[in-house]
Amino acid sequence: MTDPIPPTIEWVDGRVRLLDQRRLPGELAFLDIATVDELCDAIRTLAVRGAPALGVVGAMGVALAAARGEPLEEAAERLKATRPTAVNLAWGVNRAVAAADPLAEARRVAVEDVERNRRIGRHGAELLAAGSRVYTHCNAGSLATAGYGTALGIVRAAAEEGQRPVVWVGETRPLLQGARITAWELARLGIPATVVPDGLAASLMGGGEVDAVVVGADRVAANGDVANKVGTYGLAVLASHHGVPFYVAAPTSTVDLDCQTGAGIPIERRPPEEVTTVGGTVVAPAGVTAENRAFDVTPAALVTAIVTEEGVATPPYGPALARLVHHRP
Amino acid sequence: MTDPIPPTIEWVDGRVRLLDQRRLPGELAFLDIATVDELCDAIRTLAVRGAPALGVVGAMGVALAAARGEPLEEAAERLKATRPTAVNLAWGVNRAVAAADPLAEARRVAVEDVERNRRIGRHGAELLAAGSRVYTHCNAGSLATAGYGTALGIVRAAAEEGQRPVVWVGETRPLLQGARITAWELARLGIPATVVPDGLAASLMGGGEVDAVVVGADRVAANGDVANKVGTYGLAVLASHHGVPFYVAAPTSTVDLDCQTGAGIPIERRPPEEVTTVGGTVVAPAGVTAENRAFDVTPAALVTAIVTEEGVATPPYGPALARLVHHRP
Repeated sequence: MTDPIPPTIEWVDGRVRLLDQRRLPGELAFLDIATVDELCDAIRTLAVRGAPALGVVGAMGVALAAARGEPLEEAAERLKATRPTAVNLAWGVNRAVAAADPLAEARRVAVEDVERNRRIGRHGAELLAAGSRVYTHCNAGSLATAGYGTALGIVRAAAEEGQRPVVWVGETRPLLQGARITAWELARLGIPATVVPDGLAASLMGGGEVDAVVVGADRVAANGDVANKVGTYGLAVLASHHGVPFYVAAPTSTVDLDCQTGAGIPIERRPPEEVTTVGGTVVAPAGVTAENRAFDVTPAALVTAIVTEEGVATPPYGPALARLVHHRP
Repeated sequence: MTDPIPPTIEWVDGRVRLLDQRRLPGELAFLDIATVDELCDAIRTLAVRGAPALGVVGAMGVALAAARGEPLEEAAERLKATRPTAVNLAWGVNRAVAAADPLAEARRVAVEDVERNRRIGRHGAELLAAGSRVYTHCNAGSLATAGYGTALGIVRAAAEEGQRPVVWVGETRPLLQGARITAWELARLGIPATVVPDGLAASLMGGGEVDAVVVGADRVAANGDVANKVGTYGLAVLASHHGVPFYVAAPTSTVDLDCQTGAGIPIERRPPEEVTTVGGTVVAPAGVTAENRAFDVTPAALVTAIVTEEGVATPPYGPALARLVHHRP
């Protein structure tokens, strides 16, 4: 069966082909990337984004350097420096650098990612009741990965199993990945979705209209603290206040056991113009600045469960995550 | 001293002149409104908005009907039907209908409103410490009133008293009244302001970067439940979770003693296109809808204090609000 969502990243004729996520939902366009510099630019400007996707694209970047006979270590450093928060980027780069054949390894990272996401989906779908009204934030879907998605993989698996989930899509300012990308994916998958301003989440939960919050992660610390798109922490506080379960979907490659707590996760600051302009329209007065921290950290105490491909971690997360990362049953 | 912020509403040569808030911050433009129908349209499309401003504009609308020799009751009904949540609209309309001279009464409503806001400001400034970092949502400033503002009136009074407040301005999707209007007012007043996506509020509070949340209200129920711009309830939950005081600024005309609790406050639903398009740019895919409830209700239990022109109400709000509304010391 053809996936209704086109590939996020492909290796085509010695180039990296990216679905240009900046142009969704208006346009389905692709970029053919020939150099590491071009790829770094595509990562920085969010033509490609999402922690697992960054793992694949990092590995592909090393393959690109190898194909051009460029020094791998230098390319690896440039790629890793593009974005600081998602740990998968460095993880994917390092896998390709260490491999005898970087391109084969990059392809392996991509194939494994999709398979992992399907397993995350199956584990996560077991946590949802039939007809669940799921609230999600940002995009942890097919386009945030090599395919299938993490948080949306859970929704997708639930739909495939006949559970008929419906989704509240938090639009996710400033860059609207929820409205632009998640809603687009769900429409392609035929899963009912309603876009909401981020500020509506509280009254949806207060009104009993949300059965579960399901989000992805850019990095999970050893203690279960979760870095994810700005706004996630607020959703976790709201979910806790309203007794709504708060699930994080992430492959074990997103778990950073070297990072003891969320305090050790670097939070990327992006240009204020991403807040003060929307689609070319200036929405704040000249001379007023904006604070644009791209991520926040949700303390483990607010997380009901972390769904990985190896199984579902519940508190206490320290031993649970270590066990799953080391693939110990 | 000239107010750095132009008048929200004026009666000029038999017409109602409105500062067109839809066009801020890009353009400072005015509408001269000649008929009740035009005024209803301006209210519905948010050329003028904000509970106290709607009180004044409702009274001005009745004055417009009177000046044209039209039946007042019929004009009153049309005006009141434009927006359901802010109780001040009906309150202002009713005052003008009951008056011998509707225009004189409308002008009185406006003059009183500014005076009340200054008193709210003085009462509220006493609640803030020097150098307070205030988080506000939407616009409860000069342009939400006949002048000076309610929530921003408190910030303004604090600034006038040398307290040097600084303001986090929640941009307030979907219509960005925070980024577009509040930031514009604060820039004109010379008060330091930083615009943030609504989703950043949680981590600002978690990082100890917010000393108080101060918002306005569209209607306060007799028990202290507060209807205000969507997103307010979430801020109140976050403030409570982080031990940050949550203050509501509202004139007693916004307190509806006939409404026992927030459950009785009608919540306006607005067109989904306000969410799915921003400044002409479509940000969600075709065929995906959005939920656009303009307001939410914050339970009284999450409100630290309600600041009125008659003084500051604290829990239990039932007796405190009744006392202030009836002007009993």
